[in-house]
Amino acid sequence: MMIVMKEGATADQIEAVVERVESVGCSAHVSKGEEMTVIGAIGDRDHVSGLGLEGAPGVAHLVPILKPYKLASAQFRKGERSVFEIEGRRVGGENFALIAGPCTVEGRDQTLDVARCVADAGASMLRGGAYKPRTSPYSFQGLGQEGLGMLLDAKEETGLPIVTELMDVRDLPDVVEVADVIQIGARNMQNYTLLTEVGRSGVPALLKRGLSATLEELLMAAEYILKEGNESVMLCERGIRTFENSYRFTLDLMAVPVLRELSHLPVIVDPSHAAGRRDWVQPMSLAAAAAGADGIIVEVHDEPDEAICDGPQAIATERFAEYADQIRRVAEVAGKELSTV
Amino acid sequence: MMIVMKEGATADQIEAVVERVESVGCSAHVSKGEEMTVIGAIGDRDHVSGLGLEGAPGVAHLVPILKPYKLASAQFRKGERSVFEIEGRRVGGENFALIAGPCTVEGRDQTLDVARCVADAGASMLRGGAYKPRTSPYSFQGLGQEGLGMLLDAKEETGLPIVTELMDVRDLPDVVEVADVIQIGARNMQNYTLLTEVGRSGVPALLKRGLSATLEELLMAAEYILKEGNESVMLCERGIRTFENSYRFTLDLMAVPVLRELSHLPVIVDPSHAAGRRDWVQPMSLAAAAAGADGIIVEVHDEPDEAICDGPQAIATERFAEYADQIRRVAEVAGKELSTV
Amino acid sequence: MMIVMKEGATADQIEAVVERVESVGCSAHVSKGEEMTVIGAIGDRDHVSGLGLEGAPGVAHLVPILKPYKLASAQFRKGERSVFEIEGRRVGGENFALIAGPCTVEGRDQTLDVARCVADAGASMLRGGAYKPRTSPYSFQGLGQEGLGMLLDAKEETGLPIVTELMDVRDLPDVVEVADVIQIGARNMQNYTLLTEVGRSGVPALLKRGLSATLEELLMAAEYILKEGNESVMLCERGIRTFENSYRFTLDLMAVPVLRELSHLPVIVDPSHAAGRRDWVQPMSLAAAAAGADGIIVEVHDEPDEAICDGPQAIATERFAEYADQIRRVAEVAGKELSTV
Amino acid sequence: MMIVMKEGATADQIEAVVERVESVGCSAHVSKGEEMTVIGAIGDRDHVSGLGLEGAPGVAHLVPILKPYKLASAQFRKGERSVFEIEGRRVGGENFALIAGPCTVEGRDQTLDVARCVADAGASMLRGGAYKPRTSPYSFQGLGQEGLGMLLDAKEETGLPIVTELMDVRDLPDVVEVADVIQIGARNMQNYTLLTEVGRSGVPALLKRGLSATLEELLMAAEYILKEGNESVMLCERGIRTFENSYRFTLDLMAVPVLRELSHLPVIVDPSHAAGRRDWVQPMSLAAAAAGADGIIVEVHDEPDEAICDGPQAIATERFAEYADQIRRVAEVAGKELSTV
Repeated sequence: MMIVMKEGATADQIEAVVERVESVGCSAHVSKGEEMTVIGAIGDRDHVSGLGLEGAPGVAHLVPILKPYKLASAQFRKGERSVFEIEGRRVGGENFALIAGPCTVEGRDQTLDVARCVADAGASMLRGGAYKPRTSPYSFQGLGQEGLGMLLDAKEETGLPIVTELMDVRDLPDVVEVADVIQIGARNMQNYTLLTEVGRSGVPALLKRGLSATLEELLMAAEYILKEGNESVMLCERGIRTFENSYRFTLDLMAVPVLRELSHLPVIVDPSHAAGRRDWVQPMSLAAAAAGADGIIVEVHDEPDEAICDGPQAIATERFAEYADQIRRVAEVAGKELSTV
Repeated sequence: MMIVMKEGATADQIEAVVERVESVGCSAHVSKGEEMTVIGAIGDRDHVSGLGLEGAPGVAHLVPILKPYKLASAQFRKGERSVFEIEGRRVGGENFALIAGPCTVEGRDQTLDVARCVADAGASMLRGGAYKPRTSPYSFQGLGQEGLGMLLDAKEETGLPIVTELMDVRDLPDVVEVADVIQIGARNMQNYTLLTEVGRSGVPALLKRGLSATLEELLMAAEYILKEGNESVMLCERGIRTFENSYRFTLDLMAVPVLRELSHLPVIVDPSHAAGRRDWVQPMSLAAAAAGADGIIVEVHDEPDEAICDGPQAIATERFAEYADQIRRVAEVAGKELSTV
Repeated sequence: MMIVMKEGATADQIEAVVERVESVGCSAHVSKGEEMTVIGAIGDRDHVSGLGLEGAPGVAHLVPILKPYKLASAQFRKGERSVFEIEGRRVGGENFALIAGPCTVEGRDQTLDVARCVADAGASMLRGGAYKPRTSPYSFQGLGQEGLGMLLDAKEETGLPIVTELMDVRDLPDVVEVADVIQIGARNMQNYTLLTEVGRSGVPALLKRGLSATLEELLMAAEYILKEGNESVMLCERGIRTFENSYRFTLDLMAVPVLRELSHLPVIVDPSHAAGRRDWVQPMSLAAAAAGADGIIVEVHDEPDEAICDGPQAIATERFAEYADQIRRVAEVAGKELSTV
Repeated sequence: MMIVMKEGATADQIEAVVERVESVGCSAHVSKGEEMTVIGAIGDRDHVSGLGLEGAPGVAHLVPILKPYKLASAQFRKGERSVFEIEGRRVGGENFALIAGPCTVEGRDQTLDVARCVADAGASMLRGGAYKPRTSPYSFQGLGQEGLGMLLDAKEETGLPIVTELMDVRDLPDVVEVADVIQIGARNMQNYTLLTEVGRSGVPALLKRGLSATLEELLMAAEYILKEGNESVMLCERGIRTFENSYRFTLDLMAVPVLRELSHLPVIVDPSHAAGRRDWVQPMSLAAAAAGADGIIVEVHDEPDEAICDGPQAIATERFAEYADQIRRVAEVAGKELSTV
């Protein structure tokens, strides 16, 4: 932590800050410039933060230097990237995970149709929601346990591992029966209860970035999971909220190279929600692969016009093989291969 | 819902949309202009949304007309404002609720000292956190049940109703023993599980706006609580995330008059977290009162420099009486009186 | 400037950075922590910035410490606030400037009617636009020189100093004939040509903050004017662009106390454009006064329903006296008096 | 324009709106729903906007339906894309323009070295700034006329067309001597004087999106140029301002497919300023090509560590051929070929 003193801070004020820094077991290095003095507090960031020096006499502001996350940081693995296996599919490194399936599990036939289609086209995993976070209490909230059963059937038939969302810690026992990857939605990115329980479950997690979460906050949320001993966390960029309103969310593809520098964890991109329309989902999917993402999670539907939820953004099953092929070509330029068994 | 057709949409495409609108029991009014055609779909908004017409041939885009919230809307009370009582303090209407207390309950003495101070200065309620949402898993997470006990003692001694945060639905039984108002934090604004359970508890709720939640989303979150039969919901503006980084959050005071037009629910402002520094908390508190807020929730500490959490933004107890007095004067210009027993 | 080295930066990399810092005449202080090394570069910020060290081997990132503006900084006046006179009206310090008038000069009668009204209610200056920046090339662009003439007539009749916008440097000779204050619009905040010429003109300037300008950028823009020897600059907060779209712009009142800490220049608030509706302009005006602003610039119209431009946000002349009275009361709580001759 | 009436609007209020709409020569279609009434105003959007109906009794809000731009709209060319030639290089359609060169013209040797390098690698045009918009008045402002001369030399030697920025209308005569494309910077996107003069010059324009400009505003700015009869306008996405601060700007690649739907004009992406670091420029360049951009404008330097301005984001000349090759491969997947003579 760097403590920047105001111009005109007195020697006594500087001394008082040094004493407080040392009182929590940190060491203080004072750099006096012509116009201002900066004090470097070396030691535990939390201890120095805890001092609340922002309000102290003579202090202008504090500049954190060390990253607040540890297990999620690139340094923790000394620059090596995390690679882990999910039912035989490798995630991270030179592998590109193509995760596809319906937004919401609506029925057995739909689920099986889509599962077969994406399996045939070489997808790595099947996505599908049984519990749906909905802005309106009056909207369809998902099939719940019944939906989980349909996902299990689809897994049995196609062998594809299942990615599905958990919203309520009380549903964890049911969800772990089915999920190979537990998805944590953007609105729950800072639901610390949920993060901790998913960490304890040991099931791999796909953690979506909150609509206005900084990359540092995303990594801190991942840290909640990692801290419980669960090492298999995928970070997921799904669009952030900005002033632009000619589409739904701004897909932040800058996050891909930046997260890959800050952290060893795989970075997945969800282009469906940001675009909101299938003709925009395709170019953004290619762009994600070109930007170096470790995978994509995308919505596919056999009858998009009849979908209960988010139909306009689903890719139609009949177009999926061609879509997957284009993704494969661009991922290759970026040095990655589609991950299958 | 207005369905705007593309220029050059054919008569068949227009007809197809009309048929689909009518298929879900809504009526369709077609307005043909020189350059484009607009179809008004009159009936249940969710039914029309469910059709997924964004992707249909000839459709340019959809424009929602009706508000998606009902119980929270100003129309629901025909323009009359909600006023409710919390342990004898009136909230809403011409009453101004001054809610004050420590960010975090740190110990018995601190809690009682602050409680006495704010009670003496005429505060309406006591705030204090026993469970704290923290960005870092390594930070102090609150005293939990022990902290709840200290709040109960403070209530017994001063008579002030208690406002405290709930983060985990499994803590609800403990929290309802103490809380006169359950606070739902900004990061949990769209934790639908939590909203529903707080709705069922019947305990009045103070619902903080998410960091990037639109006012419509805030009202939809309130709707989750109201829908369970709990009519006592306070909306709380606490700062939104913007590009500006010379302070912590942008306190959105425009939200005050706008929410008061859209909804009958009382609007409270939390100036502490946005400002992050006590010398900025004071002017923003006065500004909130001037903008017509129905109350303020503010952090107060007896020894801000020693606070475990957010000390720099806490108002010192010795300055609180003067602070309360200035708030009172500005609230009067805006037509409100401090709410006490 | 603080140069934060990556974990694992070598001694050679550190030495190389030190040498480059010293090569531009700055001194380098090295602080070695357990996990990382930080190098403080003391001297001219621009010289160190010019080195482009962000890309150098072993460098993690750079943290600027010194403010890049000088003449605009609070330190430049050693904490004393700027106060200057405009035709006898004092701006800054304990004076509150109420600047009012039509958005656009539409005709002689309208301009005189509004001018008389605001003069009678105690306004400090008259605002009115002859050149209007319009998003659409098809919209009314202002009366130009003819409009300037009407403003001159209004000044002659009421004695009120004139605030009017300049968009094109080629119009400067005409505008200085009339303007007591030259307004620089938000879209031109970083039109450096215009800033420099207004600086050279010596006429007091009211500089509006760009829609997405940080406070630091606003102060840098002011620096362009101040650097030419023009010391009479008012900073104007007029609303920033955020994700929220239930009103036009987010009025950033946090900017008021923060700018007043960073700079000695007076801070004016324009509530009209952000609100966009007159029933929201009133509470935001009071909030600006409560937040400690040095003044308000607000739109007033004699027949708002007939206004060519922005009528819905104009306060009607018949309500202006009452409006001014409420402003006066709140400004008094904030320690200020309306500025008149 | 749709005029949404408040619930409870009276028949008289509805009638009054209809009358005002008809008074400006538009026709009004009234749709009465159970809960609310919507009035469609068919005719000239500006006429209806000019009525200021937002403030009228009974009116809830206005919803614009027609796009405010005409010449820039996809409809204007009936869905066909604009393709134009610049010194024999085709821009738009199936052509991919690779525009490369130094941020700032620093000297004759640097300019020629970079120009030769990018010409050899197959670039379409040479970029280079002689006039530089700088946040600080104390920073290097460009070589001006001397720099223009160096660009002319580079063009003579390599045959590459020149893209260079114009900031001040008074420099137009000098700039048109050299520029094959006039660049309008992000900070000048709404400098209407500049837009109009560039429109009148007839020289092709590359118009950068403002830091917080919506896509609609970008198209309105293009409309200012097109309206003067200049049909050769390239739109340029260069990163927008958001809350995220772990990189410089958020490159909005969603803008690529969306602009290509809204407009017939070519869409170019500038990845250098948003990324701010060359190792992030490369993946974002590929992503732009994958998203369907019609070109890229990128910074290249022969000695990035010695660059006067923005060195850390420049691609080194020795790496440029490989960079261009990767761009070529991804652009091919997106159906485009590098544009050369």
